[in-house]
Amino acid sequence: MKEIKAVIVGFGNIGKAFLRVLMEKSSFLENKLEKKVKIIAICEADGSLVNEAGISLKEALSRDIKRLNYWKENKNAVSLIQELDLDILFEFTPGNIESGEPGYTHIREALSNGINVITSNKAPLALKFSELMNLAKRNGVKLKYEATVGGAIPIINLRDTYLFGEEIIELYGILNGTTNYILSKMTSELLSLDSALKEAQELGIAEANASYDIDGIDTAAKVAILANSLLGKRVSIKDINICGIRDITLEAIELAKKHGYVIKLIGDCKKLEVAPKLIPKWSPLNVSGTLNAITLETDIAKKITLVGYGAGPRETCSAILADLIDVLRDL
Amino acid sequence: MKEIKAVIVGFGNIGKAFLRVLMEKSSFLENKLEKKVKIIAICEADGSLVNEAGISLKEALSRDIKRLNYWKENKNAVSLIQELDLDILFEFTPGNIESGEPGYTHIREALSNGINVITSNKAPLALKFSELMNLAKRNGVKLKYEATVGGAIPIINLRDTYLFGEEIIELYGILNGTTNYILSKMTSELLSLDSALKEAQELGIAEANASYDIDGIDTAAKVAILANSLLGKRVSIKDINICGIRDITLEAIELAKKHGYVIKLIGDCKKLEVAPKLIPKWSPLNVSGTLNAITLETDIAKKITLVGYGAGPRETCSAILADLIDVLRDL
Repeated sequence: MKEIKAVIVGFGNIGKAFLRVLMEKSSFLENKLEKKVKIIAICEADGSLVNEAGISLKEALSRDIKRLNYWKENKNAVSLIQELDLDILFEFTPGNIESGEPGYTHIREALSNGINVITSNKAPLALKFSELMNLAKRNGVKLKYEATVGGAIPIINLRDTYLFGEEIIELYGILNGTTNYILSKMTSELLSLDSALKEAQELGIAEANASYDIDGIDTAAKVAILANSLLGKRVSIKDINICGIRDITLEAIELAKKHGYVIKLIGDCKKLEVAPKLIPKWSPLNVSGTLNAITLETDIAKKITLVGYGAGPRETCSAILADLIDVLRDL
Repeated sequence: MKEIKAVIVGFGNIGKAFLRVLMEKSSFLENKLEKKVKIIAICEADGSLVNEAGISLKEALSRDIKRLNYWKENKNAVSLIQELDLDILFEFTPGNIESGEPGYTHIREALSNGINVITSNKAPLALKFSELMNLAKRNGVKLKYEATVGGAIPIINLRDTYLFGEEIIELYGILNGTTNYILSKMTSELLSLDSALKEAQELGIAEANASYDIDGIDTAAKVAILANSLLGKRVSIKDINICGIRDITLEAIELAKKHGYVIKLIGDCKKLEVAPKLIPKWSPLNVSGTLNAITLETDIAKKITLVGYGAGPRETCSAILADLIDVLRDL
């Protein structure tokens, strides 16, 4: 049984959900891959929980980690990356879409130190995709980011497996669950955008500051990542033309409906564009609620559409677990 | 550049489409995987085209292979499998769902001789899944069958990659494009089943003898394969309860529609059942035309739905190419 040493940076909803999944799956991973993942640090913005003998996942989940014995005030992720002998860094901090920080620094530091990175953090990749991928390559490690796009939908890893031999011609879809929820509500219940948004906020589907979703920025970050990853384009979020759903009126929704269409916020990775589009009612992209849906057009499979939950901490862990397994197989 | 020697058994629509795809992708495979796939025989029921120096794919596609120089009357696949030094057998014959023949014999013979098998032939796997998989394992070779279910939809290979760490709890979907086309037409144009079937036959979507599709047998074969492959059940098509769409009336379709439902022929791999079911209009499974759609419910990703073309020679080659790449990586 090989012991794999890992650090988690960012202990919010995703970090916590991932610890739970790791507890559930640890004996499976031990049996199938003969690898034991040992979490030796969990880093927050103001300090870190550090125990080189391995942190008790149960304890970290059941109590405030800042009150645990091994909590070190002001100990930050960067210094731990440099000091500890690590195999994997899990980067789960929320990313600033202007600077990519603090994730960008964490990821760069880890890769430079020969540490594999698995992240759910869109910002660093939406800004600096090729720089970070090249850094990983030069250091002989992996940078895995399935969780940054489409939550539980297997899209990034498909490129190296099922779609390896295919030429991807078009790639577009619904990449943000919040806006899809709002548009679906407007369509099915004829709510105004403001009422649908308010409902989404009350349900915790939308943030108090909903601009990141509503104005298409979250979708654009995912478009940038997919365009790099699946279409081989060398672009950043700054190259994406973005139009959100703020100006979609109920009249537009009703008119679309009358003609057999629905309005969806579509990210188009070929055109590098985010904009509301008319989608035929019968299209596989016409999924409602918080679902995401991605259509690939290729030279051989022609059209494949993948539908799943684009957010939710546990669903996102599906992507993180797939990335972890891929990394463990090589360690 | 390693040379990989392969034989194609069954040279109908899929065999021909695959040769075309192989021509298109051969330099890609040589560049990326450093493997050159050389087809040294193409077998039909009444003879084989054999050239150990490599068959010209262009020639085999542009002329009747029985008129080519290397055609050997009465030379059959089984004797070639025994005589030739082969790496891969492509089994593309149409399978008899009662006996699994002739594919069953071809696959068994190849695996026993240490030859990897890639097949689009459902019958042998729907009947003898574990026997054949065990035979492959014992002989240290692969038996790949992505093309047997859902055409271009990446479902089988997902088990070993993206879904490796997940527990699949439910697995069901629309697995037959012909019946989906008929039901879609009945729903959208209020055609009777007979008229919709006739239209499908005129368009070449349904066979003259449509029983295999309409009566749910094709769907049941796929249910058996998925149940073995993704749910670990040890069953054959004989264990599946089958009810086709023959008795679906326009009245039933209209009544369903009135209540916000559509009727779809659903294969359920957990319940081992094929039957027409009411599907909510907003469900991702509500796809129309010849599309297939498969929903997986898992412990972490929760619900993923994959939509794509379930048939069509070129689309099916998407699955065959993915299997080929997987086999080539290990050779």
